[in-house]
Amino acid sequence: MIDAYGHVSLRSPRDANRYYIARSIAPERVQLEDLMEYDLDSRALDAQGRESVRERFIHGEIYKHRPEVMAVVHNHSPSVVPFTVTDVPMRPLFHMAAFVGEGLPNFEIRDVQRGTDLLIKTPQLGDALAKKLGPKPAALMRGHGAVVVGENLPRAVGRSVYLEISACMQMQALLLAGDKGKITYLDAAEVKASNPVQDYGRAWPLWREKALARAKAERR
Amino acid sequence: MIDAYGHVSLRSPRDANRYYIARSIAPERVQLEDLMEYDLDSRALDAQGRESVRERFIHGEIYKHRPEVMAVVHNHSPSVVPFTVTDVPMRPLFHMAAFVGEGLPNFEIRDVQRGTDLLIKTPQLGDALAKKLGPKPAALMRGHGAVVVGENLPRAVGRSVYLEISACMQMQALLLAGDKGKITYLDAAEVKASNPVQDYGRAWPLWREKALARAKAERR
Amino acid sequence: MIDAYGHVSLRSPRDANRYYIARSIAPERVQLEDLMEYDLDSRALDAQGRESVRERFIHGEIYKHRPEVMAVVHNHSPSVVPFTVTDVPMRPLFHMAAFVGEGLPNFEIRDVQRGTDLLIKTPQLGDALAKKLGPKPAALMRGHGAVVVGENLPRAVGRSVYLEISACMQMQALLLAGDKGKITYLDAAEVKASNPVQDYGRAWPLWREKALARAKAERR
Amino acid sequence: MIDAYGHVSLRSPRDANRYYIARSIAPERVQLEDLMEYDLDSRALDAQGRESVRERFIHGEIYKHRPEVMAVVHNHSPSVVPFTVTDVPMRPLFHMAAFVGEGLPNFEIRDVQRGTDLLIKTPQLGDALAKKLGPKPAALMRGHGAVVVGENLPRAVGRSVYLEISACMQMQALLLAGDKGKITYLDAAEVKASNPVQDYGRAWPLWREKALARAKAERR
Repeated sequence: MIDAYGHVSLRSPRDANRYYIARSIAPERVQLEDLMEYDLDSRALDAQGRESVRERFIHGEIYKHRPEVMAVVHNHSPSVVPFTVTDVPMRPLFHMAAFVGEGLPNFEIRDVQRGTDLLIKTPQLGDALAKKLGPKPAALMRGHGAVVVGENLPRAVGRSVYLEISACMQMQALLLAGDKGKITYLDAAEVKASNPVQDYGRAWPLWREKALARAKAERR
Repeated sequence: MIDAYGHVSLRSPRDANRYYIARSIAPERVQLEDLMEYDLDSRALDAQGRESVRERFIHGEIYKHRPEVMAVVHNHSPSVVPFTVTDVPMRPLFHMAAFVGEGLPNFEIRDVQRGTDLLIKTPQLGDALAKKLGPKPAALMRGHGAVVVGENLPRAVGRSVYLEISACMQMQALLLAGDKGKITYLDAAEVKASNPVQDYGRAWPLWREKALARAKAERR
Repeated sequence: MIDAYGHVSLRSPRDANRYYIARSIAPERVQLEDLMEYDLDSRALDAQGRESVRERFIHGEIYKHRPEVMAVVHNHSPSVVPFTVTDVPMRPLFHMAAFVGEGLPNFEIRDVQRGTDLLIKTPQLGDALAKKLGPKPAALMRGHGAVVVGENLPRAVGRSVYLEISACMQMQALLLAGDKGKITYLDAAEVKASNPVQDYGRAWPLWREKALARAKAERR
Repeated sequence: MIDAYGHVSLRSPRDANRYYIARSIAPERVQLEDLMEYDLDSRALDAQGRESVRERFIHGEIYKHRPEVMAVVHNHSPSVVPFTVTDVPMRPLFHMAAFVGEGLPNFEIRDVQRGTDLLIKTPQLGDALAKKLGPKPAALMRGHGAVVVGENLPRAVGRSVYLEISACMQMQALLLAGDKGKITYLDAAEVKASNPVQDYGRAWPLWREKALARAKAERR
């Protein structure tokens, strides 16, 4: 779900006004020494010459607005991008992505600034995105991707994975059903019943193991 | 076909009132010591502190209703889920998935209980699913995935694999044929002729070999 | 393109009335000792207890009808199967699969025998398929897959690979163009100009290398 | 994005009238000793019996027309080919492929020569393609693939990768939006703002690392 340009951050468990994100390299290549610490204005505390991610304001501004959020994922999820450029809303149809049913806003950067390269390169754009996100688990970003949050890292990552899968399933269901067909989405009670429990606890150790094995294999 | 949340069970070859299923971890990570034994009410016989799969009632209740079934697979087959939320039935168009032609019921959990998280977490839900499955080789589960059974493990796994492939092919055939186009499905005689012989005997050793090689590579 | 049930045969370079095909195991697992020799009536010459592929009549009967053919591939090409069950013909739109423009017949087994499991299990069915194929480079098989031939092994395998890719591209082009849109297919002169030269000479060593590397990695 | 038939060339950093391209083998198999040097008329300077890529005129003729171009990629990008055979233009909807918004011409070889095998096998065809490309970052090639250029190698490769991804996203967006739906493409100002900065600097080291690791793994 995360290509070379996605990034993942963690709020510091020791200081709610700090967060960690890797320097500007592809996520798959990140090593411990690439992690940098920032304050919530996204100023590096000890840069040591390392290049900061330009879109770090996505993270800092969301941590400001959402005290319960401990992890933020930004990605270019390929099946989600088509939804960001159409009027078709993502809707919940797969129980593993029931959080979609909370309603995912679509951030149109033009509402804040025209003629950009679509990147969240300033505190102002980060703040606007965080406001658009509001209390939701994720927001689409028009022509760009998505931002996904969680009260812990596995939840933010798991939601990213299943957001992509859900988008793909919804496209297929829409094609199958056709113009006149009916799709049974999760209803409000089902969305409510699904969300508190979902920490992707079975998947997380597997994803972690696979990522580490791949990293190790590639570095041999 | 089986993501981190799928699970596979086997009826005990020694006692038809017992079945084996791994503790609650991703299928790819399962080791011998993770296998747990259950009675058909899905009570663990010797848990040793291991966490049971919450949806084990799928397995226990099906083993109660279907004495000939020796293996049960539950999955979130990505091309099958779109069918579970539309009115388009899966139909047989690929000889490797001729069993689709026996008719696959779609289990709507709302018919039993409203406002769930769609999980089969109780004996009652498992029983309702088993009744919906009836004598069929598989049942879809709305917004969730599928359950697939077999008189032996390769048959249940093979049917799971080809159910996914068949769903994908059917979506493509429907798009190709369009609203007015005709699709040639397997007819009743072809379905009947195909099913008794299909034990996926060529594929099984390959799948097994690949799974073991991958597991080994990841653990190195 | 070749799942566990595909098979590849070679006419003997020493005796035009003999061909080689592996015993009934998945193609990826084939070792030298699995190769069996057959006459054109598909009788094993020295079986040594090895199980013959049930559908070997595809190969023997085609070698009878097509003296110039030196290799035959049978597969369940996933993007080709949807074409086999609709009235939409495969057409040439990608220069690497220009041979599609020679016209690929679609074998309907029901025209020969009703109520089968769709397998080519008898000389009669093999003969009917070979006649349907006629002088063409490939034939679709309804609800089943395809058979692809070549004057050498790389050509038969290369055509199989690009038949799948071409099918996938054609589905996408049809969706893009919509009901009223126009698709520019290769014209007859382009098909003619493309075909004599295509032996997939750049791809073959790569495919071979990758297959051997994978086989080796899986057996370690 | 580059199958066995794609190729990548580099203008010589020492002599603007020379370029390097590998001999005619699949890109994944290229070793240092496979690199050959050509003048801009695509004559090999020191062939040493190595076979030249037949379509090298794509490269030589573009280097003649575009002095700023330092790298050229030719590929058979599978999601791009469907656009080459329809009247649906590729349009920019993903910021990583904003360059699509500069307008990508579609080269119809029939406008130059009828009855070809679609290959750019002569200086005349190369020249016509280069003229069709004009000042653009890429051109589609009808029924064949695309050619992509850049002021450096990572830019040409990065554009190739994201051209494929953008094509795939656009097909999905068109399906989602349907006949009457609206798609928000990048506007002219967004395209302009995006392009100067895009050198795929985060992805390049990752792609390089992965390609080398795979090459190494396959050769062990």
